[in-house]
Amino acid sequence: MSRTPVSARERSVGTVAMRWHGGSLELLDQRLLPDEEHWITLEGASGVAQCIREMVVRGAPAIGISAAYGVALAARHAGGGDWKAEIKQAIRELAASRPTAVNLFWALQKMEQEFAGCHSLDEAVKRLAKVAVQIHEEDLAANLAMADNALAHMAAEKPFSVLTHCNTGALATGGYGTALGVIRRLHEKKLLKDVFADETRPWLQGSRLTAWELAQDGIPVTLNADGAAASILAAGNVRWVIVGADRITANGDVANKIGTYSLAVLARHHKVGFMVVAPSSTVDMALASGKDIPIEEREGTELRQIRGVSIAPAGAKVFNPVFDVTPASLIDVIVTEKGIVSTPNVTGMKSLFS
Amino acid sequence: MSRTPVSARERSVGTVAMRWHGGSLELLDQRLLPDEEHWITLEGASGVAQCIREMVVRGAPAIGISAAYGVALAARHAGGGDWKAEIKQAIRELAASRPTAVNLFWALQKMEQEFAGCHSLDEAVKRLAKVAVQIHEEDLAANLAMADNALAHMAAEKPFSVLTHCNTGALATGGYGTALGVIRRLHEKKLLKDVFADETRPWLQGSRLTAWELAQDGIPVTLNADGAAASILAAGNVRWVIVGADRITANGDVANKIGTYSLAVLARHHKVGFMVVAPSSTVDMALASGKDIPIEEREGTELRQIRGVSIAPAGAKVFNPVFDVTPASLIDVIVTEKGIVSTPNVTGMKSLFS
Repeated sequence: MSRTPVSARERSVGTVAMRWHGGSLELLDQRLLPDEEHWITLEGASGVAQCIREMVVRGAPAIGISAAYGVALAARHAGGGDWKAEIKQAIRELAASRPTAVNLFWALQKMEQEFAGCHSLDEAVKRLAKVAVQIHEEDLAANLAMADNALAHMAAEKPFSVLTHCNTGALATGGYGTALGVIRRLHEKKLLKDVFADETRPWLQGSRLTAWELAQDGIPVTLNADGAAASILAAGNVRWVIVGADRITANGDVANKIGTYSLAVLARHHKVGFMVVAPSSTVDMALASGKDIPIEEREGTELRQIRGVSIAPAGAKVFNPVFDVTPASLIDVIVTEKGIVSTPNVTGMKSLFS
Repeated sequence: MSRTPVSARERSVGTVAMRWHGGSLELLDQRLLPDEEHWITLEGASGVAQCIREMVVRGAPAIGISAAYGVALAARHAGGGDWKAEIKQAIRELAASRPTAVNLFWALQKMEQEFAGCHSLDEAVKRLAKVAVQIHEEDLAANLAMADNALAHMAAEKPFSVLTHCNTGALATGGYGTALGVIRRLHEKKLLKDVFADETRPWLQGSRLTAWELAQDGIPVTLNADGAAASILAAGNVRWVIVGADRITANGDVANKIGTYSLAVLARHHKVGFMVVAPSSTVDMALASGKDIPIEEREGTELRQIRGVSIAPAGAKVFNPVFDVTPASLIDVIVTEKGIVSTPNVTGMKSLFS
């Protein structure tokens, strides 16, 4: 089966995390990077849900897009029986895969709305695939727009260094990236000196994914332990800390990968700018503040082992929240494709997202 | 060969990192913990220097004590030739093993002073061994005194939780521990709820050593990723962040394991107490401030691999400083065996250490 235009466009804007073939979805197994580029082919929603749960695919926007494709696959491969029930069940299963990133629920809601208007399975197959591709393409377009908005805000004239956390690149999105998209654009405009990448324990998105993705695309990157970020900021060589988001609430609070909140406190202490970059699908105006965001805790083995190698006593008790909440008061600017919110608060958020 | 009284005393106050047998020194290979308890037997200073460089033994006080024993071994096993030159060479080699912790230089200076008064090799063998054992015993005694001083300062009546970084226990000292000694004492006095232990990347002293040591001694411990410390402090369940030190300068600045400075900023932001616990051998009144402390950078492989398993692109550029400097202004109290310095500054430090 030939590739859709989406895949073609992606290739020109960073490494690809997923490939849509109409009847199947291929996901790059991000658990095996950077050692191995292994693709998993999926033909049903359950497989996609499993891949989201087990972090074959991760990153808030990429999770949302994958889930949308999962619904499209559910329609495409629906059995001869109650196709409506099958698709509804697929949506439920996908919605239960991970709790924190809101893009998942946003994408599933879009799919559900489309599904509600379908009168036959044939129609559902076509319309759901079309909307999933559209969600994917819009995410890519949003990333490109966010990079424009961020650069306009930074108004930089000379190259500078940035520090980032986790992976927010093409691997985490529909292509190009959110925070890493801004960094990519800085590089394109010759405004980037160096990218300090937190290794991002426990899942090592920084060392495994960001260092790999930036190297693939010829962008300079220097890895550091999460605990070294404070020293790097104190040294005065970083102008902006740039991160993504998994959910942004009505007051501008941001849930993102564990360690982000720490960086926000450190950035403020060192008078370094703190920028959050996320598509509007990450904004959840239904939640008043970060206190309302469900924070996923994952298994202790993520800290007791690395790739199957023991690094702690086998029975050690572990506290492993994989996201944290950064209060709006520590954020200098939230950048979305719809525009930016400086020193975010309820009023600023409302003016852009109501 | 029978054990000296030091080893006997150590066994009663925590896990043992070293055993002195007069003619040889045994070091517990801390690189292999918690999987394997392997002891390395040394009969010369070069072997001890190598063990310090390669982190078989680590922790500022334990490094100092090991180096002292290394000088004693140099005398004991000196060849028939120029024994003075041999001992001097041993001291030079040990001094070059690691740059940041000052306890190493302090211990070697003590050994050098003793050595200067020796008129025969026989005399040197006896006197250097005696002083090394004395340095070891005094470190243990200092740890016990620091725990008293810290508890008096905290004046706690009800159990509370603490957060710590790296390993500062019996494994890092002559026994009992510095910061972990205080935590041990809180546990003995039933004032300890839980210990949150940063895993402490890159070398994982928290997960490999602290979690192991505390479990060995029946003290509660919960491991967390370094990036999760901010969330733990924000949740309000920790009253004190308690850490050790590798060097404290005349103004009260503290060099300690990378990530300590980050915790100090976070503790201040969350109005949580920040306590540094270290023997007076860690104080370097010859340096005006933390800016003068040489900060060791170690190989990038410490971030690119964990126990030989690749976790980043092989050629990734890495910034790996293994210590950072916490300015005195972020420290609530420095606890030593000589007393405490609250809100440390030049005057406070001078009054206790001049």
